[in-house]
Amino acid sequence: MFQTQPFSNSLEYFISVRRYTESLFKPLLIEDYIPQTAFFISPPKWHLGHTTWFFEEFILKNYYLGYKVFDNKFNFIFNSYYNNVGQRVARHKRGDLTRPSVEKVYQYRQYVDKHMEKLLNKSEDNKLQDLLVLGLNHEQQHQELFLTDFKYILGKNPLFPVYKKDFDLTNQKNTEQGYLLVPEGNYEIGHIGKGFFYDNELSRHRVFLHAFEISKSMIINDEYINFINDDGYKRFDLWLDEAWVWVNENNISAPLYWQHVDGVWQHYTLAGLNPIDGQNMVCHVNYYEAAAFAEWKNMRLPTEYEWEVSSKSINWGSRWEWTSSAYLPYPGFKKPPGAVGEYNGKFMVNQMVLRGASSATSPNHSRNTYRNFFHPHFQWQYSGIRLAKKQIL
Amino acid sequence: MFQTQPFSNSLEYFISVRRYTESLFKPLLIEDYIPQTAFFISPPKWHLGHTTWFFEEFILKNYYLGYKVFDNKFNFIFNSYYNNVGQRVARHKRGDLTRPSVEKVYQYRQYVDKHMEKLLNKSEDNKLQDLLVLGLNHEQQHQELFLTDFKYILGKNPLFPVYKKDFDLTNQKNTEQGYLLVPEGNYEIGHIGKGFFYDNELSRHRVFLHAFEISKSMIINDEYINFINDDGYKRFDLWLDEAWVWVNENNISAPLYWQHVDGVWQHYTLAGLNPIDGQNMVCHVNYYEAAAFAEWKNMRLPTEYEWEVSSKSINWGSRWEWTSSAYLPYPGFKKPPGAVGEYNGKFMVNQMVLRGASSATSPNHSRNTYRNFFHPHFQWQYSGIRLAKKQIL
Amino acid sequence: MFQTQPFSNSLEYFISVRRYTESLFKPLLIEDYIPQTAFFISPPKWHLGHTTWFFEEFILKNYYLGYKVFDNKFNFIFNSYYNNVGQRVARHKRGDLTRPSVEKVYQYRQYVDKHMEKLLNKSEDNKLQDLLVLGLNHEQQHQELFLTDFKYILGKNPLFPVYKKDFDLTNQKNTEQGYLLVPEGNYEIGHIGKGFFYDNELSRHRVFLHAFEISKSMIINDEYINFINDDGYKRFDLWLDEAWVWVNENNISAPLYWQHVDGVWQHYTLAGLNPIDGQNMVCHVNYYEAAAFAEWKNMRLPTEYEWEVSSKSINWGSRWEWTSSAYLPYPGFKKPPGAVGEYNGKFMVNQMVLRGASSATSPNHSRNTYRNFFHPHFQWQYSGIRLAKKQIL
Amino acid sequence: MFQTQPFSNSLEYFISVRRYTESLFKPLLIEDYIPQTAFFISPPKWHLGHTTWFFEEFILKNYYLGYKVFDNKFNFIFNSYYNNVGQRVARHKRGDLTRPSVEKVYQYRQYVDKHMEKLLNKSEDNKLQDLLVLGLNHEQQHQELFLTDFKYILGKNPLFPVYKKDFDLTNQKNTEQGYLLVPEGNYEIGHIGKGFFYDNELSRHRVFLHAFEISKSMIINDEYINFINDDGYKRFDLWLDEAWVWVNENNISAPLYWQHVDGVWQHYTLAGLNPIDGQNMVCHVNYYEAAAFAEWKNMRLPTEYEWEVSSKSINWGSRWEWTSSAYLPYPGFKKPPGAVGEYNGKFMVNQMVLRGASSATSPNHSRNTYRNFFHPHFQWQYSGIRLAKKQIL
Repeated sequence: MFQTQPFSNSLEYFISVRRYTESLFKPLLIEDYIPQTAFFISPPKWHLGHTTWFFEEFILKNYYLGYKVFDNKFNFIFNSYYNNVGQRVARHKRGDLTRPSVEKVYQYRQYVDKHMEKLLNKSEDNKLQDLLVLGLNHEQQHQELFLTDFKYILGKNPLFPVYKKDFDLTNQKNTEQGYLLVPEGNYEIGHIGKGFFYDNELSRHRVFLHAFEISKSMIINDEYINFINDDGYKRFDLWLDEAWVWVNENNISAPLYWQHVDGVWQHYTLAGLNPIDGQNMVCHVNYYEAAAFAEWKNMRLPTEYEWEVSSKSINWGSRWEWTSSAYLPYPGFKKPPGAVGEYNGKFMVNQMVLRGASSATSPNHSRNTYRNFFHPHFQWQYSGIRLAKKQIL
Repeated sequence: MFQTQPFSNSLEYFISVRRYTESLFKPLLIEDYIPQTAFFISPPKWHLGHTTWFFEEFILKNYYLGYKVFDNKFNFIFNSYYNNVGQRVARHKRGDLTRPSVEKVYQYRQYVDKHMEKLLNKSEDNKLQDLLVLGLNHEQQHQELFLTDFKYILGKNPLFPVYKKDFDLTNQKNTEQGYLLVPEGNYEIGHIGKGFFYDNELSRHRVFLHAFEISKSMIINDEYINFINDDGYKRFDLWLDEAWVWVNENNISAPLYWQHVDGVWQHYTLAGLNPIDGQNMVCHVNYYEAAAFAEWKNMRLPTEYEWEVSSKSINWGSRWEWTSSAYLPYPGFKKPPGAVGEYNGKFMVNQMVLRGASSATSPNHSRNTYRNFFHPHFQWQYSGIRLAKKQIL
Repeated sequence: MFQTQPFSNSLEYFISVRRYTESLFKPLLIEDYIPQTAFFISPPKWHLGHTTWFFEEFILKNYYLGYKVFDNKFNFIFNSYYNNVGQRVARHKRGDLTRPSVEKVYQYRQYVDKHMEKLLNKSEDNKLQDLLVLGLNHEQQHQELFLTDFKYILGKNPLFPVYKKDFDLTNQKNTEQGYLLVPEGNYEIGHIGKGFFYDNELSRHRVFLHAFEISKSMIINDEYINFINDDGYKRFDLWLDEAWVWVNENNISAPLYWQHVDGVWQHYTLAGLNPIDGQNMVCHVNYYEAAAFAEWKNMRLPTEYEWEVSSKSINWGSRWEWTSSAYLPYPGFKKPPGAVGEYNGKFMVNQMVLRGASSATSPNHSRNTYRNFFHPHFQWQYSGIRLAKKQIL
Repeated sequence: MFQTQPFSNSLEYFISVRRYTESLFKPLLIEDYIPQTAFFISPPKWHLGHTTWFFEEFILKNYYLGYKVFDNKFNFIFNSYYNNVGQRVARHKRGDLTRPSVEKVYQYRQYVDKHMEKLLNKSEDNKLQDLLVLGLNHEQQHQELFLTDFKYILGKNPLFPVYKKDFDLTNQKNTEQGYLLVPEGNYEIGHIGKGFFYDNELSRHRVFLHAFEISKSMIINDEYINFINDDGYKRFDLWLDEAWVWVNENNISAPLYWQHVDGVWQHYTLAGLNPIDGQNMVCHVNYYEAAAFAEWKNMRLPTEYEWEVSSKSINWGSRWEWTSSAYLPYPGFKKPPGAVGEYNGKFMVNQMVLRGASSATSPNHSRNTYRNFFHPHFQWQYSGIRLAKKQIL
């Protein structure tokens, strides 16, 4: 079903993704691999082991004749949420584990890689190829999660450590201005073609859209600072009811990582603590903030359908863009059987869809039918705001 | 904008709704008016006072020249969630108040009614008429909430007290069987015409629907018992991820109010503890349960659009019907200014739409464009399940 | 073992205590009987039923031949913490019960009283007499708890309702000044003689005390206001570590029921909201506050031994007096078998001893060996502060 | 005030304690330094930095002319609970910090040690010597805390990692049997003499003790298993009220680190997972368990006074021994001024005294007047049970 994208063969594809993961981890000290500073993030060590576990569990165990599992307890330790595959360490306890050591986890990677490479050299089984591509896309998702989780870990440290000099993923500006007008009509939505996609991008189906206007640019920091200065975080009428609770219970007054010191707005980035560039796209806002900002502008967030229809005519890709669509199954959605079926479908409640991609997204891991999703209060992704005009019907 | 529905004039309409509220409270002891046994319900006394406060706050204060407020502190006590109208008793603290006494709250009602009646005798102000109809619809919503809240209060009492003999609102059977086939096409959704409606039913807009089949009957208790007996509450693969957490953290194994005693399924009703009639429509299931049941049947819940389009050809009205649609603004939705704007819009996140009406819904308070909404874990409404067939696109 | 105190016979004694309870409840509306506004208080209705249940459960069931229980479910509803006597409504759920009605609970009292009176007319069983006296002392404890709990219920109501005019139990002044000097020596501690006592007052035993000086007067409001004005609630060095957490997590800045309005200190009393009389003894402070105040004065709280030894030479009885003694068993303490053994011993950890009595304590229910005990953070008793001088050994 | 114990001079003493700390950390991987798996433990890295910080903050800053602080932010990071010394990382967030690196913290130690050594070579200031001895005793306390905390970290890891082979600190047997009879009389309690002691061991004062009998041996595992087998964890009548809540809310059925696998009792030790030796003294029980076991034996725990008086005639030192005494100030207790005064006094509420020492206690860090203290629910220390006979007075 899947294609290997821009690689000449699946082995090359496999190696490329695996090596990229390791390159992302290169700047880390051993200490950095351990903590889980919030329940919604995972320790770097866990990302490293979990992505490897995926290939062992779903491919090597089933396709590599006589494969010997690296360590029986790793299934318990590196399984994430697959109820089909036995018990696992409670999600919020991942940071408690000092062992296996980081060195051991790298040995685990090497062991699995070696066997995967042997297997890929000879096997052309279609089902295996599908699982391989799924596993590599899964690893790419964790590459991005690693970057966002690790920023969260470092960003809570009073020393504000630097991950990598000049590695500031928030540093992006708009290249276009104005609005795109899309006429009313029936449009096709969802994946089509031969490339890789997730089950939640199907079925391709038709939706009717009323005419709408969508901005070609993302909201920038200067605009967001205007919102703050206009008491945006203090006016209940701009916020959804539970957003207002969130603001007040957590004393929120700015996006994640921002701080106002001596009259200057600064923010923590993977390149350290820096002053905010007002022309950059705003980043690390959650759905509540995006919706309140839209209300303040007397505008609205686009639906995921409007976004997808517009996507060919606008520049996107530096921020995950909050849409006003809840994450729900498309007509004709079918959950695959077994553990793979737990990938997407079971999360289809109480989350909002984000479209596009962010500057933290891995290469070759974005497309305009991709449906990302997070709870509306999460800020730690590289998420931003694109607005649409309110319609008069 | 609104019409007074089947009444010859607004005074008659006002009196009719207000008297109906009081008739619902007649079976109560003084003791019954006080407790708030869960944060999501309100004490009967509070419903009684709050509905009266609405008329004082939004009508008498503005339209009755020289009106003297009954008690200055009642605004603090009986305001619900209107941030526009000052501070209020924390929602979960409503059951702490023994005073004002029940007698005093009835005096408050009489005082406000007397003034309202005088006002309605002479005023023909359009804005006032709109607020009146809104206030009466608001009161009707609280009539239903009172019935569901009070059932929740009594149902947690080990004495299983009777509200009213023969007043079992779960006692309804299907009158039709089979499926309605609706062809694909563009359909109009949302309120049209002159009757009363809420802001969330607008704008009337077009949606494209693929062909679908929807059941003419609601799921009955016998079917639901089959689900239970087939380990429905024990199979993680049937449940949404957070639904599965809910099941396990709360040890859920049946709908709300059900208990299995000596091999017999019983349930608490407002007429007391009774054996379950297998032919009755299942009741008091939440969205999680409805979705898991649908999964078990290899079917799905309809969207709110499918529901609305089908509504003229199916019998509905004994249960609120969970749809698979999240509660979100329609295209062209406009929040009214001021406190009235807090009625619906600010709740448009993390809730699911229910359509139809229930046997607890007040007379003249249902229509096929009505959008009810609750969090997916709430069971205490008279909510049931109608299924649609999975589509193959 | 016990004596009936100042009554000519046990029937008279029984009637006297039971009628006194009812007289305390007279000012209540039906509404007032229901709520439980904090986990550590009980609804008035529950106090009324529980004290009755004690006689039914421990006396009538065992000594009244052919006694027919009033209602089988009342054991479940009105048991408090006696694990020996079956299951019970969870402590924090007592306010959820609207039924049995208040009227029914009074019928329960009358039913039990009628049978108790018949029984007391003829029985002279010693064990029964002991249980009777225990039950009446138990009821007297609940008389005081009712007064403190009900004050807590009304005191949280923004209407500040009046229980009874002129019934301000905080209105007491010192009658003595200066210090009592007690020489070092071995002293006898614990109950002796024939009157009623609790198991925790035994064994009478010897303790050595170094010489000490203890104040003849209680701390008054003016002194406590000086502490507040001297930033008493803001200086961490005055507070125990967990007290400091309590102050900050709860934003405490004054004793319970106090409020500072327009430059005037007021407090809620059972007679309504009144200005504070600076000459009255301070009331409603917890152990944390008492200890911090003592530290501020460069003094200390007395031990319960020092208190008992001094008790014949000082005036006490308007406030429960916090001591610096933890609630622990005396040498030779013996837990009685069965449910009665659950009365005191099982609470002997993490609580502090209070000595004396308060203006809310029932008549004939105080003695200088009485050991009251509460967790150090509880403020809702009529508790005050007596200081001793720091010793130099 | 203090003496340097068995060392010829303070420099030698300093070096000895500091090197011992480092020897304890030798078996650790870098990964092991990071996590905080429960709020009541600290990460190894934190222990390492905090003990160093103590010398920098209280000695070098004040006594080393021209001392340059190693890193200004370390005060924020490595302060524990001294409110006098500025803000600090929230106690439960210590495991969130990946930086400073372990290497950096060792550099910090070396930097501080180098300056301390220079200072100790020339200074003979008495106050400095006192602070030095306090700092070294403080470090010794953290040596033991490190061992107990690190056992807790490893013991929750499903891999049950080994800290050091043959390093099983629970492996101790009784060397004596029978009871010591102590006659009634007035006894002197508290520190006397010239060696180091904490402020809470003063004033030396007199107590009267009734005659008592105390066991010469500690409870062993076989005895404790009998308690378990006799349903010790299931009989509410054996437990204090809040102990019973603790047992049930946490499903406790054995001491910490025990597990029953295939009919065999095993426990995690710093030498790995091992079968339990029935003759060893029971370990890792909390006060609740110690008190319930005593109740089951129809005996009691000794008071800290009884313990101290007996201490010359019994063998002690392999387990911290729970006493029945709450942790409270002695008569004449005086809190030192400033930060040092926060060492002990502010914890004197809601904790129980343990006496003796454990096999994890550092050399030269025990004496029979030492008052250790923990909350009654903590199990993670090497704590055991010595019983006394109930007295009949």
